[in-house]
Amino acid sequence: MGVHQYFKSLNDLEKLVRCPGKFKYQEHNVAAHSFKVTKIAQYLGTVEEHHGNEINWRSLYEKALNHDYPEIFTGDIKTPVKYASLELNTLFMEVEETMTTKFIETEFPPEYQQIYKDRLKEGKDSTLEGQILSVADKIDLLYESFGEIQKRNPEPLFFEIYEESLATIKRFDHMVSVQDFLGNILTEMLSERFIPKDELFEITNSILNRE
Amino acid sequence: MGVHQYFKSLNDLEKLVRCPGKFKYQEHNVAAHSFKVTKIAQYLGTVEEHHGNEINWRSLYEKALNHDYPEIFTGDIKTPVKYASLELNTLFMEVEETMTTKFIETEFPPEYQQIYKDRLKEGKDSTLEGQILSVADKIDLLYESFGEIQKRNPEPLFFEIYEESLATIKRFDHMVSVQDFLGNILTEMLSERFIPKDELFEITNSILNRE
Amino acid sequence: MGVHQYFKSLNDLEKLVRCPGKFKYQEHNVAAHSFKVTKIAQYLGTVEEHHGNEINWRSLYEKALNHDYPEIFTGDIKTPVKYASLELNTLFMEVEETMTTKFIETEFPPEYQQIYKDRLKEGKDSTLEGQILSVADKIDLLYESFGEIQKRNPEPLFFEIYEESLATIKRFDHMVSVQDFLGNILTEMLSERFIPKDELFEITNSILNRE
Amino acid sequence: MGVHQYFKSLNDLEKLVRCPGKFKYQEHNVAAHSFKVTKIAQYLGTVEEHHGNEINWRSLYEKALNHDYPEIFTGDIKTPVKYASLELNTLFMEVEETMTTKFIETEFPPEYQQIYKDRLKEGKDSTLEGQILSVADKIDLLYESFGEIQKRNPEPLFFEIYEESLATIKRFDHMVSVQDFLGNILTEMLSERFIPKDELFEITNSILNRE
Amino acid sequence: MGVHQYFKSLNDLEKLVRCPGKFKYQEHNVAAHSFKVTKIAQYLGTVEEHHGNEINWRSLYEKALNHDYPEIFTGDIKTPVKYASLELNTLFMEVEETMTTKFIETEFPPEYQQIYKDRLKEGKDSTLEGQILSVADKIDLLYESFGEIQKRNPEPLFFEIYEESLATIKRFDHMVSVQDFLGNILTEMLSERFIPKDELFEITNSILNRE
Amino acid sequence: MGVHQYFKSLNDLEKLVRCPGKFKYQEHNVAAHSFKVTKIAQYLGTVEEHHGNEINWRSLYEKALNHDYPEIFTGDIKTPVKYASLELNTLFMEVEETMTTKFIETEFPPEYQQIYKDRLKEGKDSTLEGQILSVADKIDLLYESFGEIQKRNPEPLFFEIYEESLATIKRFDHMVSVQDFLGNILTEMLSERFIPKDELFEITNSILNRE
Repeated sequence: MGVHQYFKSLNDLEKLVRCPGKFKYQEHNVAAHSFKVTKIAQYLGTVEEHHGNEINWRSLYEKALNHDYPEIFTGDIKTPVKYASLELNTLFMEVEETMTTKFIETEFPPEYQQIYKDRLKEGKDSTLEGQILSVADKIDLLYESFGEIQKRNPEPLFFEIYEESLATIKRFDHMVSVQDFLGNILTEMLSERFIPKDELFEITNSILNRE
Repeated sequence: MGVHQYFKSLNDLEKLVRCPGKFKYQEHNVAAHSFKVTKIAQYLGTVEEHHGNEINWRSLYEKALNHDYPEIFTGDIKTPVKYASLELNTLFMEVEETMTTKFIETEFPPEYQQIYKDRLKEGKDSTLEGQILSVADKIDLLYESFGEIQKRNPEPLFFEIYEESLATIKRFDHMVSVQDFLGNILTEMLSERFIPKDELFEITNSILNRE
Repeated sequence: MGVHQYFKSLNDLEKLVRCPGKFKYQEHNVAAHSFKVTKIAQYLGTVEEHHGNEINWRSLYEKALNHDYPEIFTGDIKTPVKYASLELNTLFMEVEETMTTKFIETEFPPEYQQIYKDRLKEGKDSTLEGQILSVADKIDLLYESFGEIQKRNPEPLFFEIYEESLATIKRFDHMVSVQDFLGNILTEMLSERFIPKDELFEITNSILNRE
Repeated sequence: MGVHQYFKSLNDLEKLVRCPGKFKYQEHNVAAHSFKVTKIAQYLGTVEEHHGNEINWRSLYEKALNHDYPEIFTGDIKTPVKYASLELNTLFMEVEETMTTKFIETEFPPEYQQIYKDRLKEGKDSTLEGQILSVADKIDLLYESFGEIQKRNPEPLFFEIYEESLATIKRFDHMVSVQDFLGNILTEMLSERFIPKDELFEITNSILNRE
Repeated sequence: MGVHQYFKSLNDLEKLVRCPGKFKYQEHNVAAHSFKVTKIAQYLGTVEEHHGNEINWRSLYEKALNHDYPEIFTGDIKTPVKYASLELNTLFMEVEETMTTKFIETEFPPEYQQIYKDRLKEGKDSTLEGQILSVADKIDLLYESFGEIQKRNPEPLFFEIYEESLATIKRFDHMVSVQDFLGNILTEMLSERFIPKDELFEITNSILNRE
Repeated sequence: MGVHQYFKSLNDLEKLVRCPGKFKYQEHNVAAHSFKVTKIAQYLGTVEEHHGNEINWRSLYEKALNHDYPEIFTGDIKTPVKYASLELNTLFMEVEETMTTKFIETEFPPEYQQIYKDRLKEGKDSTLEGQILSVADKIDLLYESFGEIQKRNPEPLFFEIYEESLATIKRFDHMVSVQDFLGNILTEMLSERFIPKDELFEITNSILNRE
């Protein structure tokens, strides 16, 4: 027992496959996803700062790095299940929190327990850093689903994930970094060579033009 | 929409990996697990019948084949989560049932909906067939964890699964088929060779020294 | 030695990859295939029964579950080899039977040997259950090849398998369950989104319209 | 061209396997490694700060996140090659730097180029944050090699990596966080169970003999 | 149709997994096996030549390169099946030959057909080159099974393959190259470290206690 | 130490993945690549010989078999790195040679060291055999990239590899075997069914029609 258990658990994040139970051309794991979300958040923070918004970098990096750590305890529960009932979701989040707290109290030296309780809390709050995390998490999901669509995964699920991710990102378009993403990066992404991109253009435009 | 969605969903069961988020030497999926549980249940039923207990074979096969189908909707939720609170578990099972029912009503022709609602119900009841399913499910889990232990997976989890599975099987030792399993099959399993280097030397030398 | 060897052999079925020696986007194994064939047979049996034909469910499930078990002994021999000469095929089937019998006599207690000899016999006979098995086996093969075609596997083999499977299924179109499959499920399958389905429609129609 | 190329390149880090050309029980990629190094650096920084040493958290996170990004351009070159000649190593590092700079100037908007040039520079300098990175990088390598040794990888290379990593970590034992690692975490790691067959017998018997 | 089909078929050899239907820590394919057998044959030929035996190098390389090519047509048939009856084996070899001949006559320009018929014939004849091929094929099989045993594959099959391969090699011990293999290379192979935990402790302590 | 190390190293070639760090539908390793290059070289040599050019078959096979062996020591270094500076490339090749020499002197008996030094030398010289190797190596690379393009890998890199390989092959079109390849085999390859082949036709024609 001890911090070794925590270090070892990082390896389990590397074995936790995202979007289980569906054929995918390329699989992704939670450790690599967390890395990519943190790197994307870094870029978004850089854009915000350049436009005069103050960034608490330590907070931003910690939110992004740790945002999926509690999946160690709960596994990857399908989204429709979580949201099937508000009551189930609330209970589920309580259980996740209890398990995280218990892990910290069992494995960490007392002097670091409070620090890790703070770090492993839900990070998607209303601060600028919390909003950047919400966006960065969806941008990586958008890239994951785009990768499958581009390789022509016939499963409609990946279109739905693409659509849902983009719609969520757009809800944050009061942020200058989101405007940068939608105006520049998304455009580059959609100009990637692949054959039937008409449909993807259409769905993208229809989301962006929604009132 | 229709029965094609149901046939196609069988493929998703083949992509659903058991015990996610842990290093395993050999991965297993829910489709192959369901097959193996049904074959094990067949043997247990054969033993019961030989000793004069009547088996409803149709019921036994249907319970075994379908026992994990609802994981299509919920994914593989870690056991500790499910049992973290009785309330969560109850809610979770309600959600699972609702999603199964909704799937059947959306995809199946009306004339077969009741049949499939019955088939996809929880099968581990107190009938002889229900008890055989409970045992067969744990025997396959015992084999999965034994396979990891035999290959020397250092993760203690597989010891815990082995222990928990065997303890559950033992709770059914009033059944003649369980007595057969514990008395014969388990003994054979434990006599499997765990290979040391000495044996390799010996066999090598005995071949080389043959006249 | 003993039933443990039989239980353990189920794991080998999970390692036996179907259609070896060809690039495939998604691999399938014999254990998962057997599960899917049994589930498909269950649906076909349900349709037959609904239309007044009596089903021996125990027989149907046992035929479907066990139909590929002897591949444990022989591996996956390429179809063209088996059918290259009638004499080879006959000899091959004799060897398969001999090996199956020998396995049963070595590993099973005497009181269950006859039962397992019956279960592991070729199940595709002229009974309704035997015909359902023949159809269900080809439906799963059709789905496997459809999955590759839909993901645009450039290997012509998968078109040939699709064509051969569908032609075999059509030979059973005196069965009400086959009529249901061809009339409803196949139509849904072909309406799946994917780009160059024209060719697949054509080949499908040309098979179905053959005299 | 543009930041999309940078976001997309993160996916390539996920396809870049560490320690190529050797049999490994578990493969690791550069994206997941970068995540784990950053999390380990976070813990080491926490220990340092607790003992009164000031940490520049932004710098620490950025050094750790980005420390292997240039492998995108150069691939994973075997260590013995790099160090075969001082001259080759110097040239190699110059080329790596040139390629990184060129990438930034091609893909990033001018206003962010200097920021990314700073971020993608070699981070293992003599600052406390640079030293923590050096240690964290080796701790993850130690865990990778330990994972192989514990699973009994017969390749001596993993012993050599274990040995070399630990020796490097020990060179930093003037740091309180390294003392914490060597004194506590390493001890826990080495007490991990390497499972023998005897234990399996014992646990089995103790379950079976419970009243 | 044409030589492109032949070039493309080489890729199928790369997808043909050896020893299918068994859990293996490391899988091998027929293309890589053919490469390794040719390289091993090269060494054995070098030893023979050094001891004054004349080698027809062109013949040796061609025999080794092509010895498993006909598996393209037949797949990997389990050895016990082939040898279950002499009659089956004879018929099987006839079919294999017929299919190879038909392929050559369909795909190759007439001027090269005879050359390829000669090249794809069974190469394990009584010439020195044919005997070297027999030995090299078994040495690679010995290494494959040794690799599994060394990683502690609990499946007895790999012991049987090891034993059978070594026994076959020994039957050729009138050859100087086989004497070299048995006297030198096999000894080195058996002195490979099978790693115990004690050694890890020792190395760890010796590093930590260095002055 | 000894020839066993050399035999064992062949297994490492099987673990060395070509073109690391990029998503590929099908991965290839250096051992299987070496086999395919040797088989392709065999065909090219056959064509040359048929047209009256003398082939040193032993030399041809040895050049092809061994041409990538030194990657054991250096790994797969990305091409742009090697060619980033002439100086780096020269140094790199010196290091590769030094490491190969050192390996031979450590592992091989003195009487075979010179033979292996000659075999493991760079084989792409100006002899007919050296030129055939240069072409065969690029033909396999062309097939690898064609396989990805045909499966619609969206990564532009595979188009670039296709283009670069074909351009190199064309530089050898003074050879009758290259004329055979370009005139017959390439045409068959491009007539393979797959959807957007227009672009591939165009790029192919534009290369072949360059002055």
